[in-house]
Amino acid sequence: MSVSTWPTTLYSNRSQYLAEFVDLLKIPSISTAEEHVGDVQSAARWVADRLTTAGVENVKILPTGVHSAVYGEWLHAPEKPTILIYGHFDVQPVDPLALWESGPFEPRVENGRIYARGATDMKGNLLVTIHAFEAILKSGGQFPVNVKFLFEGQEEIGSRDLGPLIESHREMFSCDLILTPDSLQWSEEQPVMWMGTKGLAGLQINLKTADMDLHSGLYGGIVPNANHALAELLGSLHDKQGNILVKGFYDDVVPLTESERERFGAVPFDKNSYCKPLGITSLVGEEGYTPYERVWARPTLEINGMWGGFCGEGVKTVIPAEAHAKITCRLVLNQNPMRVLDCIEQHLEAHCPIGASLEIVRHNATANAYQVPIDQPGALIVAQVLEDVYGATPYFVRIGGSLPITDMFLSQLGAYTIPVGFGLDDERAHSPNEFMRLDSYWRGHEVYCRLFEVLGETSISQLKGA
Amino acid sequence: MSVSTWPTTLYSNRSQYLAEFVDLLKIPSISTAEEHVGDVQSAARWVADRLTTAGVENVKILPTGVHSAVYGEWLHAPEKPTILIYGHFDVQPVDPLALWESGPFEPRVENGRIYARGATDMKGNLLVTIHAFEAILKSGGQFPVNVKFLFEGQEEIGSRDLGPLIESHREMFSCDLILTPDSLQWSEEQPVMWMGTKGLAGLQINLKTADMDLHSGLYGGIVPNANHALAELLGSLHDKQGNILVKGFYDDVVPLTESERERFGAVPFDKNSYCKPLGITSLVGEEGYTPYERVWARPTLEINGMWGGFCGEGVKTVIPAEAHAKITCRLVLNQNPMRVLDCIEQHLEAHCPIGASLEIVRHNATANAYQVPIDQPGALIVAQVLEDVYGATPYFVRIGGSLPITDMFLSQLGAYTIPVGFGLDDERAHSPNEFMRLDSYWRGHEVYCRLFEVLGETSISQLKGA
Repeated sequence: MSVSTWPTTLYSNRSQYLAEFVDLLKIPSISTAEEHVGDVQSAARWVADRLTTAGVENVKILPTGVHSAVYGEWLHAPEKPTILIYGHFDVQPVDPLALWESGPFEPRVENGRIYARGATDMKGNLLVTIHAFEAILKSGGQFPVNVKFLFEGQEEIGSRDLGPLIESHREMFSCDLILTPDSLQWSEEQPVMWMGTKGLAGLQINLKTADMDLHSGLYGGIVPNANHALAELLGSLHDKQGNILVKGFYDDVVPLTESERERFGAVPFDKNSYCKPLGITSLVGEEGYTPYERVWARPTLEINGMWGGFCGEGVKTVIPAEAHAKITCRLVLNQNPMRVLDCIEQHLEAHCPIGASLEIVRHNATANAYQVPIDQPGALIVAQVLEDVYGATPYFVRIGGSLPITDMFLSQLGAYTIPVGFGLDDERAHSPNEFMRLDSYWRGHEVYCRLFEVLGETSISQLKGA
Repeated sequence: MSVSTWPTTLYSNRSQYLAEFVDLLKIPSISTAEEHVGDVQSAARWVADRLTTAGVENVKILPTGVHSAVYGEWLHAPEKPTILIYGHFDVQPVDPLALWESGPFEPRVENGRIYARGATDMKGNLLVTIHAFEAILKSGGQFPVNVKFLFEGQEEIGSRDLGPLIESHREMFSCDLILTPDSLQWSEEQPVMWMGTKGLAGLQINLKTADMDLHSGLYGGIVPNANHALAELLGSLHDKQGNILVKGFYDDVVPLTESERERFGAVPFDKNSYCKPLGITSLVGEEGYTPYERVWARPTLEINGMWGGFCGEGVKTVIPAEAHAKITCRLVLNQNPMRVLDCIEQHLEAHCPIGASLEIVRHNATANAYQVPIDQPGALIVAQVLEDVYGATPYFVRIGGSLPITDMFLSQLGAYTIPVGFGLDDERAHSPNEFMRLDSYWRGHEVYCRLFEVLGETSISQLKGA
């Protein structure tokens, strides 16, 4: 194989790679918003075109119930492993818009960072994999492994249609290992292996106390107030420290092993340097667990949004008739999202305040938690590449977030997914002024080129540990 | 005195009185809307002209910071009491316009009702007092009391300039009793004496737990959530039944006397017929008090609005950094709004959850409660007139709402205000399709004629109970 010229290719194409990053960020591909359906489709077309230019074959836009996915392949390495690259080109909503220092879809490059919605999550990481493929392919010689690309447009709303898509294309997507660049580095100096993700389940609470908002001068003191009811109900979900009080919520959680606690404990945690950049004064959460254990291995329940009554400027002496809240839970291995929602519903019904009627609407998006065995061979190969590039041994940790696709891939395709991405956790994913460091973007190109190389030196049976 | 012909005058002038009602309703005197400033001024001029025609003297349009007020007087009853009639000629906005069955400023008379914005609140009630004055004056003989009229154009936006106006015209407005027709009957058959109003105080809570919203997958389980903190904090304000848990909140409340409780208890209350039209399943509120005692004579604390995090369509797995709530209290006699706000602030600070920082912004608008002593002679005279006209003993009740003007008149002019008006609470004040019953309009004319007569048979010292 003659792949040694890709470092030169990567370096000489940097201005083009940056221009393409800006181009893709300009597309407001917000998957949750009705009015952006066309933009998500535009992003799909942009990605499909770029794959084709890179030399990827059989590029297809695959329609689903909501937003299309994009597929492409290069399968000319017989006897070599097949690697599936998975990612997404949709992004989160941008509100509160007023907090953005420049337009969320007008990318701004400043001091080695690129600012825009989707910069770190994950349009930069997506481009890295296409560029790395192209750089090796066009540097001459045979590409070292078989590669399949699958990019979707509904990750930020829960990948509802991806399961059916995979089920109906199992042969097309079949592979030996999955790499997803939808991920983070530990720090600019420290690589990390993300060995598991959390599950997800959620619901919306609609409380009603009357048929109409009422005048507090005429009715105050005797009619129920939907805001009071909601505050009381939501207040029943946690104790002051943050322990979840929902009966049965923790029932199916598998206790942490000593070796897991040791690995997590090996990762340094400094409370002050953790809290300060976030503007946080105290940590909260479940008793008896370290902060990392809580984030990585314990289930959580968050009130993502709540509202009721008059929220405008000034004063309105109204007794609101309705109040609402949105809740999501992050779950761990062995917790069934539907069973957890059952527990929460039972809790809410049992604690529904006097005079309030309760409606619960479950979110469609659920996900199971997922875990890679600590000695999975593909994972160990990735860890070695990271150690070579960074010059540091990766931490072995988990992700508090959800990647529903990981569990789905494992059950449908029988392959583990290893996240290898280049975001950093201060880059404001899902928040105003999201950005990505350009140094990370360039490092990502190098890591994926090396990964393709090293995986090409491995047999299928080695990779799968079969 | 020869006043016995006014019933004939009232009856024979009905078509003129109705035509004038229609005329005044056609003026869109919306005080909150910039584009209606000229219309509020037109209404002022219309009222001033009508007072002059009626025989009122020294009629003046008094400029204020926003909309002018109208003053007039008739002071030729030496040794007799002076009665100030207070009201307003401005109206509420009309939106949502689509819900009106005919134009809000195109008065429609149908089935004994007149439909238009301002019909019941309070252009009809205002005209009643001018017509009554004129009917007696022009029926021959001496007018029985001294009368002053004060009609303002900014009641619906809070009467901001009325305090300074009264302060700078204390001599001109000086009087022995104030009657305001800006009020309601209990029912078509049942008269009522409104013997007090509540005070008002409020504040906004701004809670902050971090410098930015955070991803629940990356931070869930260890960082504080502003919504959790707000729910916990708001939940600390009431117990499940609705008792207010703020230390010191009830301290200055004067206990209800047995005779007050008896009077309130004399007013029939049927829970089912009260709850059903409001879509309410249970009454709530402070223990140990009847519903009417709670609405009329006990202070309340309502969360008028609250919001935090993601309140849009769909799902956003965010840990909100900020959450907000608006609170107002209805206060009773002897409660100082500023002292009550002090108590609430102390409570909020003492209960501020772990990891949250608290900012409190007090609302500018406050009002003291106001009460007419149960044996105030002017009130007893009014009650007797109502009993004579309706053939039923009036209920003695209070208003749960605030009428800042009543406390202002008492402190500036040393005179009590007795509300005597003819609206009914189903007449959609402030809502689309506002109307007034014409029967109530005609009854109003009779009540005010009788009031002028009877008050003329009273000495100043009798009236004031001095």
